[in-house]
Amino acid sequence: MIVEPAASTHSGIRPFVRALGPVIGLDLGGTKLAAVVLDDAGRVLRRSWTEHQANGYEAVLDTITTAVGDCERVVGRAVAVGVAVAGLLDRDRSRVTAALNLGFADRPLRDDLAGRLGRPVTLENDANAAALAEHLLGAGAGARSLVLLTLGTGIGGGIVVDGELVRGGRGAAAELGHLPIRPGGDPCGCGGAGCLEVYVSGTALSRLAGGTRTSRHVVAAADRGDRTAVRLLADAGRCLGDGIAMLIPTLDPDVVVLGGGLAHAAAPHLLPPLRERLNATRPFPAQTPGPDVRLSTCGPESGALGAAHLAGAMRFRIPA
Amino acid sequence: MIVEPAASTHSGIRPFVRALGPVIGLDLGGTKLAAVVLDDAGRVLRRSWTEHQANGYEAVLDTITTAVGDCERVVGRAVAVGVAVAGLLDRDRSRVTAALNLGFADRPLRDDLAGRLGRPVTLENDANAAALAEHLLGAGAGARSLVLLTLGTGIGGGIVVDGELVRGGRGAAAELGHLPIRPGGDPCGCGGAGCLEVYVSGTALSRLAGGTRTSRHVVAAADRGDRTAVRLLADAGRCLGDGIAMLIPTLDPDVVVLGGGLAHAAAPHLLPPLRERLNATRPFPAQTPGPDVRLSTCGPESGALGAAHLAGAMRFRIPA
Repeated sequence: MIVEPAASTHSGIRPFVRALGPVIGLDLGGTKLAAVVLDDAGRVLRRSWTEHQANGYEAVLDTITTAVGDCERVVGRAVAVGVAVAGLLDRDRSRVTAALNLGFADRPLRDDLAGRLGRPVTLENDANAAALAEHLLGAGAGARSLVLLTLGTGIGGGIVVDGELVRGGRGAAAELGHLPIRPGGDPCGCGGAGCLEVYVSGTALSRLAGGTRTSRHVVAAADRGDRTAVRLLADAGRCLGDGIAMLIPTLDPDVVVLGGGLAHAAAPHLLPPLRERLNATRPFPAQTPGPDVRLSTCGPESGALGAAHLAGAMRFRIPA
Repeated sequence: MIVEPAASTHSGIRPFVRALGPVIGLDLGGTKLAAVVLDDAGRVLRRSWTEHQANGYEAVLDTITTAVGDCERVVGRAVAVGVAVAGLLDRDRSRVTAALNLGFADRPLRDDLAGRLGRPVTLENDANAAALAEHLLGAGAGARSLVLLTLGTGIGGGIVVDGELVRGGRGAAAELGHLPIRPGGDPCGCGGAGCLEVYVSGTALSRLAGGTRTSRHVVAAADRGDRTAVRLLADAGRCLGDGIAMLIPTLDPDVVVLGGGLAHAAAPHLLPPLRERLNATRPFPAQTPGPDVRLSTCGPESGALGAAHLAGAMRFRIPA
């Protein structure tokens, strides 16, 4: 196997090594599948999005296999496949322990897919993969300590430190929607209370707006100057600021990236109160100025991009 | 230069490479200096503790130079020196940005020492170095995600993820004494409010006990069954539990190590309420069981041990 160092696209200490041949990255959400194909220099050969109705493990395996075939009809055989999943993974990234929106739990997705596809498969959590993409290619390029928060139905999180994803002792690090920003506060679906995503997410905004409007309606109303909607989004921005402030003593991030449709749509309403709160609660002089808070730049295929880079790196990485 | 892989003493992905020759590790606190010398297999050849009155930069340089000479009179010339400092370091670990208890700030300690000693010097924050030692040799052996909290006059913190210290975008990660466990709570010396060390530290216990007793007196009173003292320490244990709970969504640690004289002395009073609180507030099913909370096992020379390992590794490490 011939390997060669990748051109440095980021400041990480351990540069990735590129695969000699295309790699496919897929991001399987609850209803959408994003796919990208990268050549061995990391250039995007193809990107696509499709809706899917896969529910249950066999349907998920079929959907992924079909998506790989669709890519390969256009670009030829890929040497490795990376899959980002809306779900929780084990420590070794071989099993999906829970994927509520895909209707299965505790299955060896990595090895089952590798068997079907006849080549190496790399799994990662979707927000983690997106964080890696933003670090390598996007809003977090050059950051030594990067945090991604994706605002959607819930909140996803990803952390990249010194070029590496932080995965945790049980594989469940960076579940930043469950930062306890209001101890003893409103109950969360996780069984805890006062979690960040109880106050800042599509679901939260809809609930806080009375339950009859979606978060999209709330943002549209705020754009028209509706004072209740503006206040709801400002409150959400302050909650985000509190959550980010909680991360500073631990990670001292240089960059916090906000991703997801809600973050981009509501940015003019969210960001000023977020930054104001963050400036007011910055906890430690050595960590000033606090992290730069930016919108994501890798777009809706960020998870697929990160998965593709992981697949290429995992396949051909020189052991340290 | 001949290098060879170190025998694996830990589960980290990137094993350290050992220096061929002794390395010295020093831990310079406000009033005490710990020193260890390791041979090229990581065995401790010598350990010592001395009091010092170094205050100001020149006095610190002299104290360290003298300590190196004292070690070398016994064990011969060391190939590298690691220094753990009670202070804040820059991102590259070359400058000490603030060392309040040593009476200086913003000085290029690494390169000044290397010039004086004529060999490579590695700097690290004292609690970070201790966290690395606990990971390599102590209570955190085998942990993928380890957090150290040292309870002393204040609270120090260190984080090791996948065998590497988390240093942060500005070099100020793991300042865990400043986790905001009580937003809007009692003021902290850092300028913030409600920080963990406002409620759990030698200084905090003395203050909460009315200001006339030291934390040592409080622990002794609790050992005798004094109900006020027992309650003070139980409250401190619950605050520690709240602080550790705040780290779970972010780091998903498998092991949390408590170090420092106060943690060991007060463990029977602190640990049961700490664990009870942690069990009650565990925020996310995928992260259960929560981290195992253990007392440190590397002893008072943990910072010096970690500094020595960093010095050996930094000097001879094979680039990844």
